[in-house]
Amino acid sequence: MFSGAEISLYPMTDDFVGVIISALGALDPYRDQLRIETDDISTLLVGPPEVLFPAMRDLFVAAAKGGIHCVLSAAISRGCPGEPDDEICASPELSGPRESLEKRKAAALDAMTKAPGTGAAAAAQFSLYVMGTGDHMDEIYGCIDFLKRSGVFNRSKNFCTRLGGDAGAVFAALEAAFCRFGPPEGHVTIDLTVSANSPTPR
Amino acid sequence: MFSGAEISLYPMTDDFVGVIISALGALDPYRDQLRIETDDISTLLVGPPEVLFPAMRDLFVAAAKGGIHCVLSAAISRGCPGEPDDEICASPELSGPRESLEKRKAAALDAMTKAPGTGAAAAAQFSLYVMGTGDHMDEIYGCIDFLKRSGVFNRSKNFCTRLGGDAGAVFAALEAAFCRFGPPEGHVTIDLTVSANSPTPR
Repeated sequence: MFSGAEISLYPMTDDFVGVIISALGALDPYRDQLRIETDDISTLLVGPPEVLFPAMRDLFVAAAKGGIHCVLSAAISRGCPGEPDDEICASPELSGPRESLEKRKAAALDAMTKAPGTGAAAAAQFSLYVMGTGDHMDEIYGCIDFLKRSGVFNRSKNFCTRLGGDAGAVFAALEAAFCRFGPPEGHVTIDLTVSANSPTPR
Repeated sequence: MFSGAEISLYPMTDDFVGVIISALGALDPYRDQLRIETDDISTLLVGPPEVLFPAMRDLFVAAAKGGIHCVLSAAISRGCPGEPDDEICASPELSGPRESLEKRKAAALDAMTKAPGTGAAAAAQFSLYVMGTGDHMDEIYGCIDFLKRSGVFNRSKNFCTRLGGDAGAVFAALEAAFCRFGPPEGHVTIDLTVSANSPTPR
């Protein structure tokens, strides 16, 4: 299994470099569990979802807490057949048989009860893509059904689902969507946008 | 067929609102061919790819030309089974039989010869997702083969392919990737990031 994300942080301020560098400290507790590479477009995080999503959450919260309008954008992927297996990605979340959709929805809802609070509000939208199967829409509709009961569902938009709430709950819902829908060993991706402090009325 | 994109523009400046509002004028020539809806996270553009990609290109170029570091991020989609057919999306690019991969690569390369120059440099990375088929990796490898010969290929990254060059050629390559790979009536999406004027060395 190979899993990870190409992430970018966009602080809408003249001091975007300062905000990014300051926020990067939030990744320090995760550095020994992730492989991290940066270029001028994005930062690659390679590691298992139970590390990846909390790391993205803490980076987002660190950037948002100064009140600047900022956005975290990420292309998150697991099980891509074109990527090599990597030991750092080994995860109990992505192994075992594929349980029934109902059991997986229940597990996703159970994970929401353990989400920590961060005190930071997050407005997010994302698309879940399940590749290599003929029943990808069943998985996506199953995920949407979970999201509607997750406590952070905002609304369905074209091409994506919008979430809102504390960043802790929002990233927990994203992690559950990523891990519980699509086959455990399947090729699943998320196109994610998380926004803080937008001056635009919702 | 339903096609379009959820797009966001991120100018890394205190005057991000001014840069965005000024750049939006670049969409004016396309407004009668697109349905456009905005909220605080993204702007929805609904329309056919031959309108959508030039519109995104011109918006990006308008935002980039002032020299500010800015990023256009987009979730682009066609043929999602969960979206209704929409007449505004009717397109000769997404109809007809599925030709051989070799013919489609040739058509994609031919489209590159018609790309206009814009004078604006674009650094892009994107992932192409083909859903609902068992052979999605064949389509993706075919697309990568096209990109390597497109004149704007930069390198393969984890989860995505990096492009660079004039924004005219980069968006032409993205449009060809979107239209020519995956079945004409299939569910195909792109997760796109296009960056201008980054201060980070490549």
